[in-house]
Amino acid sequence: MALKTVGQYYDSLRQMSPTAYILGEKVTNVIDHPLIKGQVAAVAQTYELAQDSEYKQRLVAESKLIGSEVNRFVKLYESVDDLLVKVKTLKFLSQRIATCYMRCTGMDALNAAGVVTYEVDRKYDTNYHERLLKYLKYVQENDLAVWSGVTDVKGDRSLRPSAQADPDMYLHIVDKTKDGIIVRGAKAHQSGSLCAHQGLILPTREMRESDRDYAVCFALPSDAKGVIHVYGRGTLEDRAMEGIDLGNVEFSKFCPLVIFDNVFVPWDRVFLCGEYEFAGQLVRTFGDYHRHSHGGCKSGVGDVLIGAAAAIAEYNGVANASHINAKLVEMIKTCQTMYGCSLAASVEAKKSNSGVYLVDGVLANTSKLYKGKEYHEVSRLMIEIAGGLAADLPSDKDLHNPEIGHFIEKYLKGIANVPTEYRMRMFRLIEKLAFESRDIVSNIHGGGSPEAHRITLLRDTDLEAKKKLAKRLAGIK
Amino acid sequence: MALKTVGQYYDSLRQMSPTAYILGEKVTNVIDHPLIKGQVAAVAQTYELAQDSEYKQRLVAESKLIGSEVNRFVKLYESVDDLLVKVKTLKFLSQRIATCYMRCTGMDALNAAGVVTYEVDRKYDTNYHERLLKYLKYVQENDLAVWSGVTDVKGDRSLRPSAQADPDMYLHIVDKTKDGIIVRGAKAHQSGSLCAHQGLILPTREMRESDRDYAVCFALPSDAKGVIHVYGRGTLEDRAMEGIDLGNVEFSKFCPLVIFDNVFVPWDRVFLCGEYEFAGQLVRTFGDYHRHSHGGCKSGVGDVLIGAAAAIAEYNGVANASHINAKLVEMIKTCQTMYGCSLAASVEAKKSNSGVYLVDGVLANTSKLYKGKEYHEVSRLMIEIAGGLAADLPSDKDLHNPEIGHFIEKYLKGIANVPTEYRMRMFRLIEKLAFESRDIVSNIHGGGSPEAHRITLLRDTDLEAKKKLAKRLAGIK
Amino acid sequence: MALKTVGQYYDSLRQMSPTAYILGEKVTNVIDHPLIKGQVAAVAQTYELAQDSEYKQRLVAESKLIGSEVNRFVKLYESVDDLLVKVKTLKFLSQRIATCYMRCTGMDALNAAGVVTYEVDRKYDTNYHERLLKYLKYVQENDLAVWSGVTDVKGDRSLRPSAQADPDMYLHIVDKTKDGIIVRGAKAHQSGSLCAHQGLILPTREMRESDRDYAVCFALPSDAKGVIHVYGRGTLEDRAMEGIDLGNVEFSKFCPLVIFDNVFVPWDRVFLCGEYEFAGQLVRTFGDYHRHSHGGCKSGVGDVLIGAAAAIAEYNGVANASHINAKLVEMIKTCQTMYGCSLAASVEAKKSNSGVYLVDGVLANTSKLYKGKEYHEVSRLMIEIAGGLAADLPSDKDLHNPEIGHFIEKYLKGIANVPTEYRMRMFRLIEKLAFESRDIVSNIHGGGSPEAHRITLLRDTDLEAKKKLAKRLAGIK
Amino acid sequence: MALKTVGQYYDSLRQMSPTAYILGEKVTNVIDHPLIKGQVAAVAQTYELAQDSEYKQRLVAESKLIGSEVNRFVKLYESVDDLLVKVKTLKFLSQRIATCYMRCTGMDALNAAGVVTYEVDRKYDTNYHERLLKYLKYVQENDLAVWSGVTDVKGDRSLRPSAQADPDMYLHIVDKTKDGIIVRGAKAHQSGSLCAHQGLILPTREMRESDRDYAVCFALPSDAKGVIHVYGRGTLEDRAMEGIDLGNVEFSKFCPLVIFDNVFVPWDRVFLCGEYEFAGQLVRTFGDYHRHSHGGCKSGVGDVLIGAAAAIAEYNGVANASHINAKLVEMIKTCQTMYGCSLAASVEAKKSNSGVYLVDGVLANTSKLYKGKEYHEVSRLMIEIAGGLAADLPSDKDLHNPEIGHFIEKYLKGIANVPTEYRMRMFRLIEKLAFESRDIVSNIHGGGSPEAHRITLLRDTDLEAKKKLAKRLAGIK
Repeated sequence: MALKTVGQYYDSLRQMSPTAYILGEKVTNVIDHPLIKGQVAAVAQTYELAQDSEYKQRLVAESKLIGSEVNRFVKLYESVDDLLVKVKTLKFLSQRIATCYMRCTGMDALNAAGVVTYEVDRKYDTNYHERLLKYLKYVQENDLAVWSGVTDVKGDRSLRPSAQADPDMYLHIVDKTKDGIIVRGAKAHQSGSLCAHQGLILPTREMRESDRDYAVCFALPSDAKGVIHVYGRGTLEDRAMEGIDLGNVEFSKFCPLVIFDNVFVPWDRVFLCGEYEFAGQLVRTFGDYHRHSHGGCKSGVGDVLIGAAAAIAEYNGVANASHINAKLVEMIKTCQTMYGCSLAASVEAKKSNSGVYLVDGVLANTSKLYKGKEYHEVSRLMIEIAGGLAADLPSDKDLHNPEIGHFIEKYLKGIANVPTEYRMRMFRLIEKLAFESRDIVSNIHGGGSPEAHRITLLRDTDLEAKKKLAKRLAGIK
Repeated sequence: MALKTVGQYYDSLRQMSPTAYILGEKVTNVIDHPLIKGQVAAVAQTYELAQDSEYKQRLVAESKLIGSEVNRFVKLYESVDDLLVKVKTLKFLSQRIATCYMRCTGMDALNAAGVVTYEVDRKYDTNYHERLLKYLKYVQENDLAVWSGVTDVKGDRSLRPSAQADPDMYLHIVDKTKDGIIVRGAKAHQSGSLCAHQGLILPTREMRESDRDYAVCFALPSDAKGVIHVYGRGTLEDRAMEGIDLGNVEFSKFCPLVIFDNVFVPWDRVFLCGEYEFAGQLVRTFGDYHRHSHGGCKSGVGDVLIGAAAAIAEYNGVANASHINAKLVEMIKTCQTMYGCSLAASVEAKKSNSGVYLVDGVLANTSKLYKGKEYHEVSRLMIEIAGGLAADLPSDKDLHNPEIGHFIEKYLKGIANVPTEYRMRMFRLIEKLAFESRDIVSNIHGGGSPEAHRITLLRDTDLEAKKKLAKRLAGIK
Repeated sequence: MALKTVGQYYDSLRQMSPTAYILGEKVTNVIDHPLIKGQVAAVAQTYELAQDSEYKQRLVAESKLIGSEVNRFVKLYESVDDLLVKVKTLKFLSQRIATCYMRCTGMDALNAAGVVTYEVDRKYDTNYHERLLKYLKYVQENDLAVWSGVTDVKGDRSLRPSAQADPDMYLHIVDKTKDGIIVRGAKAHQSGSLCAHQGLILPTREMRESDRDYAVCFALPSDAKGVIHVYGRGTLEDRAMEGIDLGNVEFSKFCPLVIFDNVFVPWDRVFLCGEYEFAGQLVRTFGDYHRHSHGGCKSGVGDVLIGAAAAIAEYNGVANASHINAKLVEMIKTCQTMYGCSLAASVEAKKSNSGVYLVDGVLANTSKLYKGKEYHEVSRLMIEIAGGLAADLPSDKDLHNPEIGHFIEKYLKGIANVPTEYRMRMFRLIEKLAFESRDIVSNIHGGGSPEAHRITLLRDTDLEAKKKLAKRLAGIK
Repeated sequence: MALKTVGQYYDSLRQMSPTAYILGEKVTNVIDHPLIKGQVAAVAQTYELAQDSEYKQRLVAESKLIGSEVNRFVKLYESVDDLLVKVKTLKFLSQRIATCYMRCTGMDALNAAGVVTYEVDRKYDTNYHERLLKYLKYVQENDLAVWSGVTDVKGDRSLRPSAQADPDMYLHIVDKTKDGIIVRGAKAHQSGSLCAHQGLILPTREMRESDRDYAVCFALPSDAKGVIHVYGRGTLEDRAMEGIDLGNVEFSKFCPLVIFDNVFVPWDRVFLCGEYEFAGQLVRTFGDYHRHSHGGCKSGVGDVLIGAAAAIAEYNGVANASHINAKLVEMIKTCQTMYGCSLAASVEAKKSNSGVYLVDGVLANTSKLYKGKEYHEVSRLMIEIAGGLAADLPSDKDLHNPEIGHFIEKYLKGIANVPTEYRMRMFRLIEKLAFESRDIVSNIHGGGSPEAHRITLLRDTDLEAKKKLAKRLAGIK
């Protein structure tokens, strides 16, 4: 059973019992909750399309580890081609979902751990890499969805983990027993932790010796004892609660705060435990992978923004205006840039000692910088093309109201051959794409904040070599 | 009674009975509705501060028309100084409200009508200007709030008003009687029409002879028979419905679609009626005034964005990071640009034949271009500074939940001396500022769309004179 | 003789004998040198137009100091109106010259000294202000052109003046006698020092107690003993040397390095002498004034760029292309922004204790930020509109060559009714505007570098007040 | 002799006798002319490095056509890998030359002709493709440098070739004989036509039936009878003429206007002759290839700009300033974007019917758009980092003047351990990089103008497919 069906995916989630709070209430049947089910549906697509004969090739590959087909979301990057396919597949999925399907976080975390556990073992003669491969085998055999817990809540950001007033502002080991470790802390922005079977937890920054207890990496089931998922509220929730005016009629996203209240993790799920000098490499490797992912993913969503803008321009009767075309070109340019730089980061990948391929950090972070800044402008251009109704469209309830429905029908009509309902639907989609806070903020801060990308660009660029080029040309010996 | 108290403002609204639909339901006590009251409170500030000894000077001026003090929102622009004060007052108010107080739309429309009715009378010997001044006297004496209805729903935008499949896609005269006119059509995005006593309706574009019936300008009470206000839904409505997690705890905005279902307007409230060649001048004059307004208004809101970004940086412990400062500088730059260009458009104002001062169109539209584009980046920078919690902060209900409240309190803490609640409030404000669709879309499309500003820049710039400068310098005779 | 004629200006320069080196050679009749005369011609315009009945009002104002008319370039800013006129006059002149006429540097320096000497006297009971006014009287009565020496060569920029390996990297007092002071050092980028009668020398940065000897302000004639002007070479010098292919056929710019080799300055020309805590205020005040100047000046040059772009588009046959119009709009937008923000900085000016008006620092620096960055894009847009011949137009010598001249005439023709020569002249002007290094670099670094403007924006903005606005709206007590 | 040595390259050029005019004079020993030799030296690098054991692999590949090693500049793109290597090799060369080595134009033209001649033959049963391969064999066997003539002078750009007042504004066939064709016209901006042995001439735009005679593609030696090269003058020529203050001490660029004065071309060198419907495909294919080239080439030059900026920051003593780092990051980001998108355009390449690989047009044009706009900002950032001496550095002649040389040495010193001469050299290089008109304008217009790239983006993007994505998500059937 290395590939779950959609039904098996849903069933397997139903068999779990995570502790979850949504808007102040403890919720049991969590995956059917209106604020959750949209993302479960998105993740479900990664299972469904893997068994669709037309799309299977994009999502499925052979695993050497278990000797059978597995979903790419649980596979190691074993070649440049794996990385190229990753970008293209993420783009393909995003074009169909236009929000988050979450599984790339686990995929990138598994690979980062694959690279770094190997290095730790080389230095300390530990056996983290073997443990990780064993764990990965389990994940592959059961086709599990994995989220990755990286971002700690951080408290006072001017202080290191061990210097915080409250030692729990970064997740850390509070005890070790013969069977495993006890951890405490909280991870923020955990995209879809309630749609996944397992979490893989990484440190969020480099650590020094004094932060030793914070240098920890481990895996655990989403419903492990002591793990509490608290839903983080976003914009447009009322639409999901009402089930109308959704914009994106099937898919959505949520990001809980996940609290670790003295959680036990058995040793065979611990992949780093105090080797503080590897914490930075682990999160940086994850970061590079995840910024690489975003270039695929968000250029796919970008195609939907472009399509929505082009469609509404048509519905409004301005499809051929030269300024509309000029704006579409700007949108295409930015989306292609994100995609292109992620492809290039794949081409320039290098094999690590572990055998897992590392993307080019400069190109991967360059891709993500566009997503953080210029892509926000893509969204603005979509609004500029669409016009003011993106702000204040009357509700479907008004359209269906017996007294005023005919007015809405009449006055919100665009060009002759397009029903008012279509135009309203397109405006709703545009509203969703432009104003869903979880998506917009993720563009900026997902996979690390722009300042982190800038630091990476500078750190990974060989400035001295470039200075030498200049000096030689200037005739400086 | 040329200056209403706040109480009188509320009372006077309660005495009106507009026809209003909100999310599919007919609502009667409209100004107390949770989705409406935030903007009523904002408009109320324009009354309250006008009677506050500290701020009165900013909001009140002498009217020659009625020989007593009036609120500046119902006064004509009779000097460069009036226009400078306008920009500064709008900025001042926006700093305190951080969303829309709506009255500038009526002020700008009254002044545009003031300019153009005079010209129409000169050509046709009509008496629109006298009617308008009489109406203005009534407005001043009763200190009325006036909204302006400009933007028609437009149908197929490639077709002129008279060429639409449905002739009602632009508001037009359907009948004339001895007592007045009957109009039909709909105006979209009518900021706060339900917080105002009166509406002043203008054409939305230039007209040709065939569009004669669409060249109409008139005033009417918000509860005139046949006028239907349909609430346009925006993001974050659930917060207002629940009364928590509001972000901006007092003020908000809404924009109905206003339908004119065969509405009667008496002749003494009609200020243009078929003189089609003046329709363009009327809407362009309004547009220039309103883009001028935005430079004041949105630089004031921008100060709140800057303040919120600076406050959250402090709460997060990164107030002194150089990259934070660099981002704050970018935010300041754009806000000062909008403000500066609106001040400059005042300085370069010219007196029209009517005596009302016209702002410089190029500078006013330049100001607005920044609001449409670069100001969107200001909002993004605020999010970039704030960090990911702008996306997915748990609710106040979680904070107050007996089981998990202490976790929220603990894990959402920032620096030591700031309560978690303050930090959560600041993130909520940031969320509201960044994701309130009515505000964001208004930045782009309010007072006309960016493409309209660009056209104005080109039309109002004397390119031939500039070519001559170049030719002379190049030695071309 | 408070207003010199052009002839008197040239004569008065000829009577001076500055020490000048140009491309390694000592030059005597300096103002007729082909690399110098273009800027002398530009400065001469400030004399010529002051006596032209049509333009006189822009350039001449009454001086209270000497009770007669003076050129505005030697007048104090005694009102908001003086500052508004300054911006407009600089714009007007630049539209006619399209490069630098240099006198604003002296004007801004005189005013900055006017403000600060008053403050120094208040603290130390010195009589610098009186000296300065006496000096100004002399300048006004003789209508002298004054350059300002601000930018020191700076050596290692990470070290303060007094900490440099070579103490002369910032100009400083090396001796004091009963008659005056002796100074040593060098000032870089001294726009047109050889076109002016006098120099007014200011410190380039704030100073601490250890830098006391560097806190010095004084005036001296351009040909004072020990002052050496070394021409700094720019692009396109060969054109000036050959006298063809000039682009701008009359005017150009140059910026010497001015060396002070133990120069004596008598006490009555010394305006600061060791009062180190005022050095910063002096250069900051100058900086704000000069950034304010640039908004006028460069928006005027910008009009020439816009005109040249529009003219060449016409000559190329693409005047009506929508993308050309879109680019012209972007150019107009940026130029108007610089102009508008400088006007606004005038409107928001405050009277200093000395009676001289101070511009608003935030708005003046905002204006200059656009010149440093977005204005570079204006130049690029001009090239984008013009097309490739801006790079590699054959010379006039080819046009006049008997063998190939007819080919040049034939193949460089654009639209039918424009002579090839006109098109070539316009391309040459565009080349000059886009590639004259002294102008382009001055856009970025003139009046201080962009980083200095950014620091000013942050320092002059009351962030705490803005934080309070945000807190109040968020409901934080 | 499939790989020429440098000596052979120089010798072979000396054996040619092109007709050349430089600044109005007919020049015979053209390759030693100071305005020409810098680019000959650049082209010579492509021969020298091809025989350098360290670098050979980058420049040399096996040709199936002649069964031996050839220089990649004369090889067809026979795989994705060929295209990836192309980008990397161009970057490598540009890092060492920092201006133009010209041979990519011929390479891209040969490949474009390779693709399109095949299609023409398929339709018309002509034998252009065979002729081309025969010609290519000749080029490979003799390792010839080939320039490509694409850009016609165009006259009135609003008119098609056949509608121009002067029929010669686009190069065209004026006669056909049994031996060949006679052509007349002129091609502008012919980078390095005098450093190459052969020219390959292409149409510059799509053609219609009336333009049939303009649809012509052919090859000829640079010194063919009737071909006249007229040097186009650029900035900084005086430096080359004097041989000092060069900046880039070895390499430079020039772009003649090449006139075809009734030039005869034999049939075996004619590759398109009237098949007008293929003219557009030919130039578009060339355009895509050449924009792809630029991403490699200019990211290499960009590395020199970054290196120069980093070096001068060090020399100035500000290497560690946070704002310098922030600017370097922006520079890196843009250069990596150009490089990344060109790599990606290789990865997404498709095999044409001819077997030659076509790059992805959208990604190749996206790459070039950054070069046209954002790369101009990279140059500005370099100036911003460098400071004002980029504008007006005294000449080497001043440095070596016995009277003032010691002052220059003293006052232009930066940090302690760097000689003044080094700092001056670096400023000169920066001046060259920022102000060499041929390079800067080529960034914008080389390989087609930005508007052409934008049109390509729109034409090559499947908007309908993207609209479908949006409609499906919005629930529109």
